[in-house]
Amino acid sequence: MSVPISILTDFGYDDEFVGVVHGVIARIAPSVRVLDITHGIGRGDIHGGAMSLTRAVQFMPEGVFLAVVDPGVGTERRAIAARTPVGYFVGPDNGVLAPAVARVGGADLIVSLEDERYRLPASGATFDGRDVFGPAAAVLADGQAEITDLGPVLDPDSITPLLIPLAEPAGNGAIKASVLWVDTYGNAQLNVSPEDLNKLGLVVGDDVLIGASLRESRISWQVSFGSVEEGEPVVHVDSHGQIAIAVRGGRADDDLEIGVGDPVIIGRPDGGNRIDLKIVGS
Amino acid sequence: MSVPISILTDFGYDDEFVGVVHGVIARIAPSVRVLDITHGIGRGDIHGGAMSLTRAVQFMPEGVFLAVVDPGVGTERRAIAARTPVGYFVGPDNGVLAPAVARVGGADLIVSLEDERYRLPASGATFDGRDVFGPAAAVLADGQAEITDLGPVLDPDSITPLLIPLAEPAGNGAIKASVLWVDTYGNAQLNVSPEDLNKLGLVVGDDVLIGASLRESRISWQVSFGSVEEGEPVVHVDSHGQIAIAVRGGRADDDLEIGVGDPVIIGRPDGGNRIDLKIVGS
Amino acid sequence: MSVPISILTDFGYDDEFVGVVHGVIARIAPSVRVLDITHGIGRGDIHGGAMSLTRAVQFMPEGVFLAVVDPGVGTERRAIAARTPVGYFVGPDNGVLAPAVARVGGADLIVSLEDERYRLPASGATFDGRDVFGPAAAVLADGQAEITDLGPVLDPDSITPLLIPLAEPAGNGAIKASVLWVDTYGNAQLNVSPEDLNKLGLVVGDDVLIGASLRESRISWQVSFGSVEEGEPVVHVDSHGQIAIAVRGGRADDDLEIGVGDPVIIGRPDGGNRIDLKIVGS
Repeated sequence: MSVPISILTDFGYDDEFVGVVHGVIARIAPSVRVLDITHGIGRGDIHGGAMSLTRAVQFMPEGVFLAVVDPGVGTERRAIAARTPVGYFVGPDNGVLAPAVARVGGADLIVSLEDERYRLPASGATFDGRDVFGPAAAVLADGQAEITDLGPVLDPDSITPLLIPLAEPAGNGAIKASVLWVDTYGNAQLNVSPEDLNKLGLVVGDDVLIGASLRESRISWQVSFGSVEEGEPVVHVDSHGQIAIAVRGGRADDDLEIGVGDPVIIGRPDGGNRIDLKIVGS
Repeated sequence: MSVPISILTDFGYDDEFVGVVHGVIARIAPSVRVLDITHGIGRGDIHGGAMSLTRAVQFMPEGVFLAVVDPGVGTERRAIAARTPVGYFVGPDNGVLAPAVARVGGADLIVSLEDERYRLPASGATFDGRDVFGPAAAVLADGQAEITDLGPVLDPDSITPLLIPLAEPAGNGAIKASVLWVDTYGNAQLNVSPEDLNKLGLVVGDDVLIGASLRESRISWQVSFGSVEEGEPVVHVDSHGQIAIAVRGGRADDDLEIGVGDPVIIGRPDGGNRIDLKIVGS
Repeated sequence: MSVPISILTDFGYDDEFVGVVHGVIARIAPSVRVLDITHGIGRGDIHGGAMSLTRAVQFMPEGVFLAVVDPGVGTERRAIAARTPVGYFVGPDNGVLAPAVARVGGADLIVSLEDERYRLPASGATFDGRDVFGPAAAVLADGQAEITDLGPVLDPDSITPLLIPLAEPAGNGAIKASVLWVDTYGNAQLNVSPEDLNKLGLVVGDDVLIGASLRESRISWQVSFGSVEEGEPVVHVDSHGQIAIAVRGGRADDDLEIGVGDPVIIGRPDGGNRIDLKIVGS
């Protein structure tokens, strides 16, 4: 009885990399289903890949999660498989797996993918998606091997973490947040929850004071774009429960001139908080 | 007995949106096959999505058609499922479904996707592909629900239409057409049929007078690029039976400086028709 | 008993072309599995498509290989299917199939895809992926037809070859190579094997003299990026056993200003070879 494999990479769509990983899996485990989460992660963007995997994981079928964003391929970084309550996570131990593993409840067993029986004896040392990770995912998904067959067991706490920036006090009762993600529509997700806004005394329907790119704006907090006019910005709870900034029929990233990692100051517009815009430049 | 789902969206390939919809469907209906028509529709381009779905529909297996180009997500626009002779169409009621539904013979039953049992209880109001349309497509494809289980029945004639520009007389016996589609190779499809050209007295082998971007060209009507020299333009019947302009080994959109929606005047080069190029600017 | 189809095209991801080919195959042969190698080959880039197919073929499951990079669609070029030790290759006879067919051991039977029973009676003459190649691949993969049913048998030696540039002596004991492929990470693969470097007296750990874009560099030959500093270039054996130039954490194509087809001169840095950089401009 096999389980599906869900794959996320930064391979892009121009080369045959994605197809080759599918091919390797199909040759080893022809009956295993493979779902593509995305292959459009920015090249080498471990943080972006980790966030995308974390957002997706609860919506994918239980089974094997294969994530390859691996700028350190060919270096000493470990290749690992981790056992979790929803299945196995396979990939480089560089942080790309850690937040998703934590989201689903943590790993109780981690191994280093070193057993040559489950690696492809291929040329070069730079395509571990094909030679190491794909084969490991295939045998795990198909039940051809136990995770402990794949290599030595590691300390489960030794998985490399990923630092995700936390919002912090910005003085005057405001919050200094940052942009976690800008999606293809230009919506900017912040590292702020609706509860964080509630603690500032803000509720749906209120205006929120937003400081970004050295400018200050008042933006209405609404359930969705639907409550503001075309072209107007809106603060809303996005499809992952986080506070995000959107522009109806437009792009918040362009209008506010913000991108991933940029600081955003959030406060009350009524003088209850004052935004010190100098912080935004830091 | 399940049927396949064919999906078309404007989600692009950078984020995990497409993967998540596949995941949601796989969790609900693991044995249902999913085919991707494309996810490369321009963001929010309802017209482009509708045209692409209409061109594709007759070549996809009968089953469920899921189309999500949904700039109005989070507004009052309805989410619908429509029953047609080739299966079910699921998506926002904003015009994206209408031309394809008409192409396959129309809908005899439409419902509004309101029943909470078939929606995901997820955060936010902005990812209906995941929370509303994906689940509806999955249960319909897998036979887990009847279409009437999904919500209240609507008047079949109430489906939001899409206005597709029609070619019209341009004076002097010429036709004022417009560009319906520019494909990835730069071929420009017009809203003109070979019969329309026949009515102008033109047949394969004739030169056609084309007015576009305030310039006038004589372009040969041939069965395909194969009959003109490298770099030369050609008028031909494209793979959907429409008149299109192509450049052998080149791009018609660049050479003629035309894009989707732009006017193109068509006439006879022998004085039987005269093109008033001023019309092209309108 | 059906076999999988692996597809490679230059259709891109913006239009519904890929989905329609999947649809056509699914309608003809619903139980056949289809794997996408890539659809991101440069538009009309026969050489790029042929190289990508050749790199991928040994990693894909045996079955049918469908490759459509077909700038000559609608001309007199033949549409063919070739029988090889690993299955069938289907596509235009323009060189895109030849290197992969040779890689897997050559074809013992080739047919011209002319039988109307296995073509779609569709409009136009410009979408043979849908009308000719997809149906042929589907019936071969599903065992619905013998290859000889599809059209007249051709001379197996008549398959159109592809000229792949060979490295050649550059004077002073150096080699004049060229760039075969630049991948999405900016790594530049050369038409040079590790044995070619060994013949110059070079081994792993040595510096290699590289002449490209009228500049001369000394670049260390290492097993992988892992042995050089961030931002430094490295010569290494890539994942297909070829010599490639990479930059750790960067892009070799940008740093060395090289692209596919550009000349690269390789020699010894100790005076054993001298690079005549004027050759690079030729």
